[in-house]
Amino acid sequence: MRGAVLYAPGDVRVEDRPDPAIIEPTDAIIRVTAACICGSDLWPYRGVEKLDGPAPMGHEYVGIVEEVGDQVTTIRPGQFVVGSFWASDNTCEICRAGYQCACVQRVLMGTIGTQAQLARVPLADGTLVATPGMPDADLVPSLLAASDVLGTGWFAAVAAAAGPGKTVAVVGDGAVGLCGVMAAKQLGAERIIAMSRHAPRQELARQFGATDIVTERGDEGVAKIKELTNGLGAHSVVEAVGTQESMMQAIHATRPGGHVGFVGVAHDVALPGDELFNAVVHVHGGPAPVRQYLPQLIGLICDRTIDPGKVFDLTLPLEEAAEGYRAMDERRAIKVLLQP
Amino acid sequence: MRGAVLYAPGDVRVEDRPDPAIIEPTDAIIRVTAACICGSDLWPYRGVEKLDGPAPMGHEYVGIVEEVGDQVTTIRPGQFVVGSFWASDNTCEICRAGYQCACVQRVLMGTIGTQAQLARVPLADGTLVATPGMPDADLVPSLLAASDVLGTGWFAAVAAAAGPGKTVAVVGDGAVGLCGVMAAKQLGAERIIAMSRHAPRQELARQFGATDIVTERGDEGVAKIKELTNGLGAHSVVEAVGTQESMMQAIHATRPGGHVGFVGVAHDVALPGDELFNAVVHVHGGPAPVRQYLPQLIGLICDRTIDPGKVFDLTLPLEEAAEGYRAMDERRAIKVLLQP
Repeated sequence: MRGAVLYAPGDVRVEDRPDPAIIEPTDAIIRVTAACICGSDLWPYRGVEKLDGPAPMGHEYVGIVEEVGDQVTTIRPGQFVVGSFWASDNTCEICRAGYQCACVQRVLMGTIGTQAQLARVPLADGTLVATPGMPDADLVPSLLAASDVLGTGWFAAVAAAAGPGKTVAVVGDGAVGLCGVMAAKQLGAERIIAMSRHAPRQELARQFGATDIVTERGDEGVAKIKELTNGLGAHSVVEAVGTQESMMQAIHATRPGGHVGFVGVAHDVALPGDELFNAVVHVHGGPAPVRQYLPQLIGLICDRTIDPGKVFDLTLPLEEAAEGYRAMDERRAIKVLLQP
Repeated sequence: MRGAVLYAPGDVRVEDRPDPAIIEPTDAIIRVTAACICGSDLWPYRGVEKLDGPAPMGHEYVGIVEEVGDQVTTIRPGQFVVGSFWASDNTCEICRAGYQCACVQRVLMGTIGTQAQLARVPLADGTLVATPGMPDADLVPSLLAASDVLGTGWFAAVAAAAGPGKTVAVVGDGAVGLCGVMAAKQLGAERIIAMSRHAPRQELARQFGATDIVTERGDEGVAKIKELTNGLGAHSVVEAVGTQESMMQAIHATRPGGHVGFVGVAHDVALPGDELFNAVVHVHGGPAPVRQYLPQLIGLICDRTIDPGKVFDLTLPLEEAAEGYRAMDERRAIKVLLQP
């Protein structure tokens, strides 16, 4: 099969890789209908995360089940499935508490690489959720978004306690931040402030439910949020970047007693204890337990309530993955869909 | 009147200070029945917090109202009252959300100094809660505890989401940590693990509801908590110290999806973003909104359900405040009650 491999910073190649096979009796093999490039893939692509030899890339996927192991009981060949970037058993105590991202048996799909024609999915019964029948082709991008960016934005909005009567600010205008706007809207937030200085992203944020746009960043961005919230700060802030500046911006923009939901993969971040102490905010985040939300998100997508697939503003054949990485790196594209 | 003043690290003096007077029409003057020395008073006493000239000390207090300003409507002279270390209006949007510690009009009682015969209490209607009638003398220490250490431990246990079916670990065996144990018990926690290596504090922790004692600290303490919780970590961890080690111990001892409630005043703490990201825990804390809990806590004390006054293992006349500071600094006493 063909699959994308990162050889060095800036050097992504699509090449022949061995077809995956069932290893554990709980595995499934899927034919990937669509995969994509994640903002987090840019960390090793940019050399910020160390690369330990050539690495198969990709952890977001939708596809059709080809084959299942002997112990797979609910997932069947021929089903169209969506899965999270964490494979999880969905039965352990941590999964049952809704934190499938920390399943005691979890496997990171990024180590498998889903920017490929085929992929092995561990713990298939726990990991995969089948759609009701074969989805219309135009729903595929939205279902793919559910696999990571929508599920992650949703978790961030839930962690930020977005809901009726709340003012929600979103730091980060990448696909996850935009999906955080969409999630806040679906969760009933009264006012949603998107922080963005890019016109096309502002436009998408408004389509997804943003009521206000703030272009300022850092302390100026915080001052603007306070100005919009009677001097108090937002009830809920979604952080979807992962830098020191974005985390502090999120914490400082939240009112005392409010909630920060952070999902940007943290790089070189250290939160000063005294500032956290004096802020009196709730902080929750990390890798999203996307699996928890998949049944609900698939429902909202299939009944066409939400259309998160709009975050894909560039679609390329898998063979052109390298161009996809370049486009995201250079911020020419918000998010790139790859067709194997 | 007589009052305690810190002149320099290690140098506490009780001296004549001017009697306080009504400054704002919302003030009350109380005659202090009992005050005490807080763990947080030790930071400037030890020179860890910078001192900016001689400082009146103390922020915990119970007493009898002597006089009220023109705009005070619910608090009356003669009442026995308990107040928090933050004066708060209890009517602003932040107070109404339960975060009186961040009231838009808040005043820190520590700047006024309650280790004294008299004290001015700003925003008296919002700050003070009167007991039902004059309490029995033996209840005074417990009511004094409600003013800070009990209310703070209670907030920490609430922030840590202690409750039925939960395993709660408590980092810190000072008065606040011990009150955190008591709070976890009252909130219905199934199992309460006190982390302490001091026999008298272990004994008090058991009296307050601890089911297990862990003497190890740091990584070894974390390993012990995991051993006691099926490898997963505690659902809820109360942090009541304020150091880098104690914060990381609390975060690492919490299972994914669990809650850390931190109330130790943070000193030289920086939380690594990647560790916080990967822990997938909830973190909430800061200065406790004690005022929120006072009516409930006064009720539990007056009907003798709880006896947090046991944290006071040394009672001294106000004149001997210096000896009280020494006893707490040298860990000869858990908490010192001062009688003006």
